[in-house]
Amino acid sequence: MTQATDYRPMWSELGLDLEKHDALLSVLGQAYGDIFMSQKNRPVGMSYLDFVMSEVHGLRVQELMDGKAAGKIVVGAFCVFVPEELVLAANGICVGLCAGAEFGAEEAERYLPRNTCALIKSFFGFTLEKVCPYISACDLVVGENTCDGKKKAYESFKDLVPHEFLAMDMPNTKSPEGREVLRRAYLEFAERLEKISGREITVERLRAGIETVNAKRRALHRLAKLRHARPAPISGLDALLVNQVSFYDDPVRFTDNVNKLCDELEGRIEAGEGVLPEDTPRVLLSGCPMAVPNWKLPAIIESSGAVVVGEESCVGERGTQNLVDAEGETVEELIDRLVDRYFTIDCAIFTPNPTRCEHARQIAGDAQADGMIHYALQFCTPYQMEAPAVERRLEEDGLPVLRLDTDYSHEDVEQLRTRVEAFVEQLRG
Amino acid sequence: MTQATDYRPMWSELGLDLEKHDALLSVLGQAYGDIFMSQKNRPVGMSYLDFVMSEVHGLRVQELMDGKAAGKIVVGAFCVFVPEELVLAANGICVGLCAGAEFGAEEAERYLPRNTCALIKSFFGFTLEKVCPYISACDLVVGENTCDGKKKAYESFKDLVPHEFLAMDMPNTKSPEGREVLRRAYLEFAERLEKISGREITVERLRAGIETVNAKRRALHRLAKLRHARPAPISGLDALLVNQVSFYDDPVRFTDNVNKLCDELEGRIEAGEGVLPEDTPRVLLSGCPMAVPNWKLPAIIESSGAVVVGEESCVGERGTQNLVDAEGETVEELIDRLVDRYFTIDCAIFTPNPTRCEHARQIAGDAQADGMIHYALQFCTPYQMEAPAVERRLEEDGLPVLRLDTDYSHEDVEQLRTRVEAFVEQLRG
Repeated sequence: MTQATDYRPMWSELGLDLEKHDALLSVLGQAYGDIFMSQKNRPVGMSYLDFVMSEVHGLRVQELMDGKAAGKIVVGAFCVFVPEELVLAANGICVGLCAGAEFGAEEAERYLPRNTCALIKSFFGFTLEKVCPYISACDLVVGENTCDGKKKAYESFKDLVPHEFLAMDMPNTKSPEGREVLRRAYLEFAERLEKISGREITVERLRAGIETVNAKRRALHRLAKLRHARPAPISGLDALLVNQVSFYDDPVRFTDNVNKLCDELEGRIEAGEGVLPEDTPRVLLSGCPMAVPNWKLPAIIESSGAVVVGEESCVGERGTQNLVDAEGETVEELIDRLVDRYFTIDCAIFTPNPTRCEHARQIAGDAQADGMIHYALQFCTPYQMEAPAVERRLEEDGLPVLRLDTDYSHEDVEQLRTRVEAFVEQLRG
Repeated sequence: MTQATDYRPMWSELGLDLEKHDALLSVLGQAYGDIFMSQKNRPVGMSYLDFVMSEVHGLRVQELMDGKAAGKIVVGAFCVFVPEELVLAANGICVGLCAGAEFGAEEAERYLPRNTCALIKSFFGFTLEKVCPYISACDLVVGENTCDGKKKAYESFKDLVPHEFLAMDMPNTKSPEGREVLRRAYLEFAERLEKISGREITVERLRAGIETVNAKRRALHRLAKLRHARPAPISGLDALLVNQVSFYDDPVRFTDNVNKLCDELEGRIEAGEGVLPEDTPRVLLSGCPMAVPNWKLPAIIESSGAVVVGEESCVGERGTQNLVDAEGETVEELIDRLVDRYFTIDCAIFTPNPTRCEHARQIAGDAQADGMIHYALQFCTPYQMEAPAVERRLEEDGLPVLRLDTDYSHEDVEQLRTRVEAFVEQLRG
């Protein structure tokens, strides 16, 4: 990505390795151009997303630094279980730290077993190679006890972050005792945020945070619903990008722009216009989250003649489903409402996790999907283990399912393409 | 293993595939002969263990069936977090179900991702190929939410067990809320046991169960301490076997025989006799549990001229450390005492898990170890992730550490042997 402004002094100040960082930006810029800018018939509203992405290591990081200078704190998270509502209430900015590109894998393997998923290796690699301005900007990095990989990797990762680290506990089941684990974790998070920011989390501030994030989720729900139209008004790649950017951008500005994009898509739908012809095979993606710039699989799917009409994923509808009830007289009550909402996220780390299948079925039905592709990162035990059950359940509905395991490398692109093309042909059948 | 009695009618009744089961027993018998019976200078007391192993699918299973006929229940577990004390209190027999051999891996991979650890693949394989009389005999199988692999695998495994299945929840941290998760799990386990057995768990019965298991652990602690002597009075293989058999045998009879073995070892120590010369390099093993018949690595170590003097493992001192306080006026109080004891187990699924390092250091010191071998099953994320920290901590004490990742196959035996021999040479240096 290329920026108009010279951000190199800022990047230096953040301790980045400028040479490696330049190399990274150049690869990303190239990939973005090839994958996104080459799409035809994109909504005009995507120009905002193009701008955000072009400035993702530039202007946005500058905004974080300006925010810090003005007394805000920056909090980094790897998971949709970290409530942005609390961060906002503590005068903070919440940013996603998951990385979706292979970088510094060799360095990462000094800390991690080779059979670690690409996502974990990637955030180690980005940190060790000093190419992530977000990690550098964070006053607090939150690591949540989800999968074994992340839970145990944070034990060494915590020593690599420049400032503070908080291990956020998570339960394995949705029992009353499990709920209490999450509630306690959120109470501790709130306390820690207050301590670092020096700002008390009051009922009003937390309610405002809840309303801001609810509005963001409402806009993302709106986008998700508009994709149900036939023909699809937006590509899966562009819709995924919107979900990805939701983890980085200023939430109010982002919401405003997503709603404008949705207005435009509504116009398209009314006019019967689609981004692709009406008979384009429609695919639902389900599985592991895809962090920026992990666009490999959707790019293969959409260049194979299908359109992705939904993501049952943390970067997608699993991550955004449900709102937080903003009613409550005390901070504790509102935190209880947060727990209510976050506890519904059907991450594969929970056992059992039946609502995930039902959610996938519901999206597939609403979005008129012709087939589903289950996507797991290699070595992601929770999603790989859950895949056969999800596959079976969707196939019972008569929906063809293709199961793919991959990583962030490009070695298997042609192999994936062959399988996806055959699957898309089957859907056309 | 060959039996005097014809157990084939019993095995048939248990639904075993006799042909495959014969093949398994033949391989096991051969391995046992090669590895155990070829050892020199074994304690006489090991003849009891030899007998138990020769009847592990025979007489012992017959005892379970006789017990069931007499109104007892059989409960199978995969983990040292399942309290045998409660099973005994409910008139039950507790048996370990972890399997340590590659069997039916292809069948298992219909349910499991290829990158699943050998232990999980093995218990699926044994069940799917119908060669495990223990699984068949169980009235209740307990699957505990430890690692992602087991936690998620139980979701499909529960449909493969012949009778009932209980998912036992586990926490990720040793917080007060985490403790409550474990306490609630034990209360539910007790309730389920009462329901299946039709026998109430009373204070007296639970106290008796606690005393029986405490006595077993005391005998195993005694054995562990006797191994600290120089020269070592017993081989690591034989001591490991004792720990392995502790998961299968009748606890009272087993305890009695372990104590007799310990009497014999005390005699050896008094006489200054060892199983191997005094200058034999002494190795501590730390890492994943080794279930019967997973003897690969200890066999390589001891045939490379070293002796294993301790196992910081679930099948070893991690699994047996600490006793349960039997004081309490109510069942709930005694269950609280169970939680106190089990909550100290320093399994790598916990984060953080600092006591594991300290325990390894302590054993290494007490046992006068010259070096440590860290053993992890391939794809066992918790132990693989924890390995570098354990290695670093032990090396700070000046103890050489060799880190090995392997599985149940025999493909890497020569490669492992080369590395172990070089390590033993280094220890001799």
